[in-house]
Amino acid sequence: MTSTTADTGRLHLAAGSEELAELLDRIYSPVEEELGRVKTHLLSLDGSPPRFLDELLEHVLQPTGKRLRPAVTLLASKLHSGDGRNAEIMAAAVELLHIASMVHDDTVDNSYIRRGKATVNRVWGRNAAVLVGDYVFAISATVVCDTGNIRVIRRFAEAIMDLSAGELNEIASAYSLSQTRDDYFQRIYQKTASLFSTAAEAGAALSGAPEDTAKAMERFGRNLGLAFQIVDDILDFDAIGDEIGKPVGSDLAQGIMTLPVIIAVERGGPDGPLARFLGGSGKVGRTEEAVAAVQDPAVINESYEIAARYSDEAIESLATIKSSPARDALEAVASYALHRRS
Amino acid sequence: MTSTTADTGRLHLAAGSEELAELLDRIYSPVEEELGRVKTHLLSLDGSPPRFLDELLEHVLQPTGKRLRPAVTLLASKLHSGDGRNAEIMAAAVELLHIASMVHDDTVDNSYIRRGKATVNRVWGRNAAVLVGDYVFAISATVVCDTGNIRVIRRFAEAIMDLSAGELNEIASAYSLSQTRDDYFQRIYQKTASLFSTAAEAGAALSGAPEDTAKAMERFGRNLGLAFQIVDDILDFDAIGDEIGKPVGSDLAQGIMTLPVIIAVERGGPDGPLARFLGGSGKVGRTEEAVAAVQDPAVINESYEIAARYSDEAIESLATIKSSPARDALEAVASYALHRRS
Repeated sequence: MTSTTADTGRLHLAAGSEELAELLDRIYSPVEEELGRVKTHLLSLDGSPPRFLDELLEHVLQPTGKRLRPAVTLLASKLHSGDGRNAEIMAAAVELLHIASMVHDDTVDNSYIRRGKATVNRVWGRNAAVLVGDYVFAISATVVCDTGNIRVIRRFAEAIMDLSAGELNEIASAYSLSQTRDDYFQRIYQKTASLFSTAAEAGAALSGAPEDTAKAMERFGRNLGLAFQIVDDILDFDAIGDEIGKPVGSDLAQGIMTLPVIIAVERGGPDGPLARFLGGSGKVGRTEEAVAAVQDPAVINESYEIAARYSDEAIESLATIKSSPARDALEAVASYALHRRS
Repeated sequence: MTSTTADTGRLHLAAGSEELAELLDRIYSPVEEELGRVKTHLLSLDGSPPRFLDELLEHVLQPTGKRLRPAVTLLASKLHSGDGRNAEIMAAAVELLHIASMVHDDTVDNSYIRRGKATVNRVWGRNAAVLVGDYVFAISATVVCDTGNIRVIRRFAEAIMDLSAGELNEIASAYSLSQTRDDYFQRIYQKTASLFSTAAEAGAALSGAPEDTAKAMERFGRNLGLAFQIVDDILDFDAIGDEIGKPVGSDLAQGIMTLPVIIAVERGGPDGPLARFLGGSGKVGRTEEAVAAVQDPAVINESYEIAARYSDEAIESLATIKSSPARDALEAVASYALHRRS
């Protein structure tokens, strides 16, 4: 599916709008009703005291994102004919955890906008944002207890550890030219894939699916998450129009060593524009030159090839699962992660 | 026990060093061994990957505070002859939660020092501190899962919600002259007493104590926490020497409406120095004048009287518990919360 598009002239895997709409339809139609109930559950949480939190919670709980993580939990639960109620609870917890981590990410990055909406740190200030993130983390931890499954609850807490360790790791390794691809893969497992794998595995486990299905879902979620984050990091440089909603190269501007950056460093060598830019902690060399070096079609293409391998591996992990709309939807998720434009 | 001391000339309940040392001895001697194991457990957590976190975790996990919360859990577990292992796990989780909340508090308050040690935000910056706090919250949530008791795990997650809601509430109600004593009590329940009550109740529940002991411990912890926080808020104005380690009136400088401030507002009326200082959001009237109005012996004395009522209520809740070194130690905790100097 590698193609050259007219608008960028670069090689990439992003699909056309119609293909994407079809993928999204395949993903969401088997769990439309369940996702509706998860949304209602989330919005019901803003009615609890204290009053002053209402406005803040309403702001963060309003659906704006793609709700891909809760969809994965619900789809994984549908691979087995068991009771889906606990999976719906888990889907709500997973989305809450994602929201909480976004609130802290935006605070740490000092971002002012996310998906067209002002961030909490922008509207209420960074101090309130730290505490609101904590509060939403805690709501998620309370909600996950309602599943009554200690293994799932514990895995969920570990996913929170991974999330924050991954983000910390990202800060700690900024501007570090010695970063390897493996360092990167470990970091994005923590930052992104751990939660996807928890979402998928818990969905299966909570529906009473056999252990090998739960294991297959863990593998599915892990590889999906890796593909998803690599594409995220590519789109930071290869955004089509302004669909991502943040400036091109914004991660690089903070010295973050994503896969395309690491590949560009490898290709450019110690005297290349990336090495000069990063080696001088962003103070030597021009940002535009460094961004252009990452936007090299060969770099983007190699990055996409690696993402495609993880997406394929995710689809591969579905091999033993018998055919169903939910299984087909999970395949579509793996495909969407790779071909999305934002 | 109300007395006038030579060094301040004001009425207060702070005890002499010898009396305090005796109280601390009564508190810690029945659980010395257990607290040692909890400390070992905490320090063992810094060996886990990722490496770069080691230094950070070692910094935050080194014992500097009084470890009053884990002591309460351990003491509550000793009221019953059951197995104490789960209570030790809970004690570690409770201390980790307290540490995480301190890391975020210091970040929000921009504090540079706590108990003589540089804060995480001071050494590694505010962004790292947000994420380290998240990481330690997540460790605490993972550790509490090891108790295997869903009721306790859920109560723990609720305590995290209360903690962050209480802190948010404090920010939201700063400079608000309409704050009542009840608003304050609700807030300090969330901010401080909820965790003390969780610590005490879970200690009893995890040792297999009967339900009425667990209930008595919940009530003990709640009242202890309220007394503890009121005294904290008094000591912000009434510190003896520099034992608290932060400038006198630092909460007031941020417009925080603590009990002594609310009482001083009530006494000073709408034209008093407090109303002028707070009504102008700290920009009208002099801070020194406002601080002096709170330091009025009548204000401090009334605040101590209220704290003493909660301390008495905590001791009262031990009435049905049969005599033992652990019970005596819990009484000493309630006494210490009231009479401490820092």
